[in-house]
Amino acid sequence: MKFNVFTQVEYSVRSEGTLILNIHALGTAKQSIITEELLLDPYIRADELHAQQGENRLVKFGVNTDTPNIKVTYRATVNNSYEINDFSNTQEIQVSELPASVLPYLNPSRYCESDKLYRMADNMFGYISNPFEKVLTLTNWINRKVQYLSGSTNAQTSAFDTVTEQAGVCRDFAHLGIAFCRALTIPARYFTGYAYLLKPADFHACFEAYLDGKWVLFDATGLVPLNGLVKIATGQDASDSAVANIFGDVMFNNMQVSCELAEDGFEPFYYSEGEFKGLSYL
Amino acid sequence: MKFNVFTQVEYSVRSEGTLILNIHALGTAKQSIITEELLLDPYIRADELHAQQGENRLVKFGVNTDTPNIKVTYRATVNNSYEINDFSNTQEIQVSELPASVLPYLNPSRYCESDKLYRMADNMFGYISNPFEKVLTLTNWINRKVQYLSGSTNAQTSAFDTVTEQAGVCRDFAHLGIAFCRALTIPARYFTGYAYLLKPADFHACFEAYLDGKWVLFDATGLVPLNGLVKIATGQDASDSAVANIFGDVMFNNMQVSCELAEDGFEPFYYSEGEFKGLSYL
Amino acid sequence: MKFNVFTQVEYSVRSEGTLILNIHALGTAKQSIITEELLLDPYIRADELHAQQGENRLVKFGVNTDTPNIKVTYRATVNNSYEINDFSNTQEIQVSELPASVLPYLNPSRYCESDKLYRMADNMFGYISNPFEKVLTLTNWINRKVQYLSGSTNAQTSAFDTVTEQAGVCRDFAHLGIAFCRALTIPARYFTGYAYLLKPADFHACFEAYLDGKWVLFDATGLVPLNGLVKIATGQDASDSAVANIFGDVMFNNMQVSCELAEDGFEPFYYSEGEFKGLSYL
Amino acid sequence: MKFNVFTQVEYSVRSEGTLILNIHALGTAKQSIITEELLLDPYIRADELHAQQGENRLVKFGVNTDTPNIKVTYRATVNNSYEINDFSNTQEIQVSELPASVLPYLNPSRYCESDKLYRMADNMFGYISNPFEKVLTLTNWINRKVQYLSGSTNAQTSAFDTVTEQAGVCRDFAHLGIAFCRALTIPARYFTGYAYLLKPADFHACFEAYLDGKWVLFDATGLVPLNGLVKIATGQDASDSAVANIFGDVMFNNMQVSCELAEDGFEPFYYSEGEFKGLSYL
Repeated sequence: MKFNVFTQVEYSVRSEGTLILNIHALGTAKQSIITEELLLDPYIRADELHAQQGENRLVKFGVNTDTPNIKVTYRATVNNSYEINDFSNTQEIQVSELPASVLPYLNPSRYCESDKLYRMADNMFGYISNPFEKVLTLTNWINRKVQYLSGSTNAQTSAFDTVTEQAGVCRDFAHLGIAFCRALTIPARYFTGYAYLLKPADFHACFEAYLDGKWVLFDATGLVPLNGLVKIATGQDASDSAVANIFGDVMFNNMQVSCELAEDGFEPFYYSEGEFKGLSYL
Repeated sequence: MKFNVFTQVEYSVRSEGTLILNIHALGTAKQSIITEELLLDPYIRADELHAQQGENRLVKFGVNTDTPNIKVTYRATVNNSYEINDFSNTQEIQVSELPASVLPYLNPSRYCESDKLYRMADNMFGYISNPFEKVLTLTNWINRKVQYLSGSTNAQTSAFDTVTEQAGVCRDFAHLGIAFCRALTIPARYFTGYAYLLKPADFHACFEAYLDGKWVLFDATGLVPLNGLVKIATGQDASDSAVANIFGDVMFNNMQVSCELAEDGFEPFYYSEGEFKGLSYL
Repeated sequence: MKFNVFTQVEYSVRSEGTLILNIHALGTAKQSIITEELLLDPYIRADELHAQQGENRLVKFGVNTDTPNIKVTYRATVNNSYEINDFSNTQEIQVSELPASVLPYLNPSRYCESDKLYRMADNMFGYISNPFEKVLTLTNWINRKVQYLSGSTNAQTSAFDTVTEQAGVCRDFAHLGIAFCRALTIPARYFTGYAYLLKPADFHACFEAYLDGKWVLFDATGLVPLNGLVKIATGQDASDSAVANIFGDVMFNNMQVSCELAEDGFEPFYYSEGEFKGLSYL
Repeated sequence: MKFNVFTQVEYSVRSEGTLILNIHALGTAKQSIITEELLLDPYIRADELHAQQGENRLVKFGVNTDTPNIKVTYRATVNNSYEINDFSNTQEIQVSELPASVLPYLNPSRYCESDKLYRMADNMFGYISNPFEKVLTLTNWINRKVQYLSGSTNAQTSAFDTVTEQAGVCRDFAHLGIAFCRALTIPARYFTGYAYLLKPADFHACFEAYLDGKWVLFDATGLVPLNGLVKIATGQDASDSAVANIFGDVMFNNMQVSCELAEDGFEPFYYSEGEFKGLSYL
């Protein structure tokens, strides 16, 4: 399905510094970038770089007080692509059978302290034998128990906080989902993207669990159809997949984001309890 | 310098499970493996795999209750190789000048919550302009203030705990050093290895800071000469560079480690306050 | 019912210091001390003092290196006294109706961070209207979910840790019970005592909730009959009701505790789900 | 010195609930209330109650949706009274010499986790032998290192956070001062009051340390003269001495506070490094 995505971010620069932005739609075999444009106003040379761990497309540029106000505009038309598979007969697999590239996603990370959640996750979800059902159940638990509350958390909030305090935003919902999965020995990673129908419009975060050899998408917020996402990045958590990393005395001022259909025929897809159909982006 | 390194680890297996061990000396252009042997008793097929993020050599194998006791033996003769450079004139560099492969080591991680230490690190060490001196000073601060106390911490202890509670073991000393560096916008990574003259013999952990285009070694414990290490792995922190990851009901029983000289002429090298000579493994 | 209680604690003294022990059975209108003896060997003058907040009987004495080994022996015969009431028709009451002396037990405290558990407690237990049933249900939840595991926690572990990590000892079980109650606006306090039938013999900790004008006992460990306790102290949590507070370089070496029947006819009393009979010490 | 103090607080009431306010100036032998008035608009019967642990004067009243908007007004003319003593020759005293009423202020509490700060406090301030100088030095350290930053913390922030994150408001400054003192075996308690010359006008929090048999005032914020305070309450920390405790769905809307001179001749008093004159309210 084709989407037009757009973002415009403005910064005030008060010292020499560096901005690393993670706002480009990912270009993969199956998520094709039809047109794309990045503008820095005023013009600054920016390097596109690929994060060490994957295919994420970062843009990095130095700033200084010669240009005290920077406006970054990105717009693209992207054709995303996904598949829906049936996980009714998914089995737990031993870690020894997992590919090496997937193993890092079993580790605890800055915002997903799965090492502190083993007993809790096992007490809550360990009884479920089908791994897809396990992840769907924990996703629904987060959706029902954690209150979506803007401003209740900050950039330091982690899954260990959220599991108890039970309030947060999409980033916190994703971190908790990931932490539960890893605590249950299911590889999981953070997913950021442009999201069709997200209100208010913003970047979105959710997560993917590795099931039957596929990265299957889950979104504990339930705010958007699962098939309306344009992938930007995947990673351990927001520590390596944040939309922006700012170094120096540079202030974020203002941001606009949008994600609109570029063709007709979109049919929203959500998971339902009791069904075992999972969506994977390609 | 040539070293004979050795480890033997025993596990009791009570369920199906997986062991991922990170005990192989790294083989690089400049750290050459002269001889090497890995034995699993009883014999189990093991896969060597390279961690996604680098050159670390992991060994992965499945276990089950058919072999309730497993003994893993690794021995190697390794020629390590390092250089010592002068950092007297090292300058701070902007993040925008760093290579892409180094940027992940500015992120906070599970055990190195640098995002919580910005003001503290800046208050303590921000006044020092030479980055080498900055890292040496913070390393010495850890050495003087944090008490080396076996059993005072556990696998969940992080730099945020250690900076306040001021007790721990080599892993905790390394995590705190890394967290301070990253909070000061200096890339830093975890380093594990075999350590000559470490008493009692054990695996060792310290850290590397990225200065003047090199990964320079620092060891806040001060327990061993810096040039007596045989590198096993580098990574974000113990979450991706631990000696062992165990999945399933498998109990660690017993471990021996040794690191001995395989040739003459070793001259121990330590840093001194006021000097600006830094050691980098190659 | 009459019990013989006994404890003997030994300390090594390496500097000038102070010991404050909280090992005396409480003497109240209804818990009578029949005989009692406190011995310090070698003899040191000790002051009995009453904690500011209540009737707890502390013993305080200075130590120094003239007496490098101290043995404290306490033995008493105590007649405890309790009542069992029916809480089938207990109603929630407004805070405005609570007596002033009870209000402090709604506050969060060092080991009972109820202020972080509001949403979680409400999500888990808020639907239950009878307050006795609410406390019984949360007590049973702790009993089923938290693993009793000696050595898994330390003196710094708090309810915020335990609710997630789900392992601990009697102190941790009590702290979590208290934190849940306070988060649900039910006053709750820490209770320590000698415990008949506790194996291995030790001091015991549980908690009381304020219901229908009475302090009703709950024990999430389920290790002992509720009517076999000889009360030592009540308080906010272990921060003001610990068995011992040590100041100076004084090492705890060894402890024995016992609690035996001094008369016949003991019939163990436990709560059952679905029943609404609660026990209060007098 | 005479002061006119005033506060007006407005709440929206959305459910049955209870408000407990701690806004009355303390009336003691030496802080005399000359005139005083409390108004609830609309009128609700309020109980004045004394907190269990001391002389604090709380006002408690039930609210419900019959009165959806409540305005509480308090105004008083108060004559405070203090003494200034010389602590040049103050000695450390053993805990065994402290009065029983002071001992609770050595315990860790919800927002002052002194039990986690022993090594850090000793490393930083343990070398200072005069206890007044010790407390003055740690107070000045907080003043220099911790950034006063409105909105950087919330009601759950504790000294363990602040010592590392080094930003906060007066409450956080006080909690850290208390935690350091207790970690150094100096009793310390939270102090709230009306504060002359505080800008912007608000309630103020600082702390008292127990030195030479007196509760001596320290204020790490340095925002106001130490002799311009009208005491409201002292306690363990904000958990028992907060200005307001709200139970039920009641929203704080708006607050005004003022503290003005009611007579001439005020001479502001601050501590100076190197001087050993300490102020105690009577």
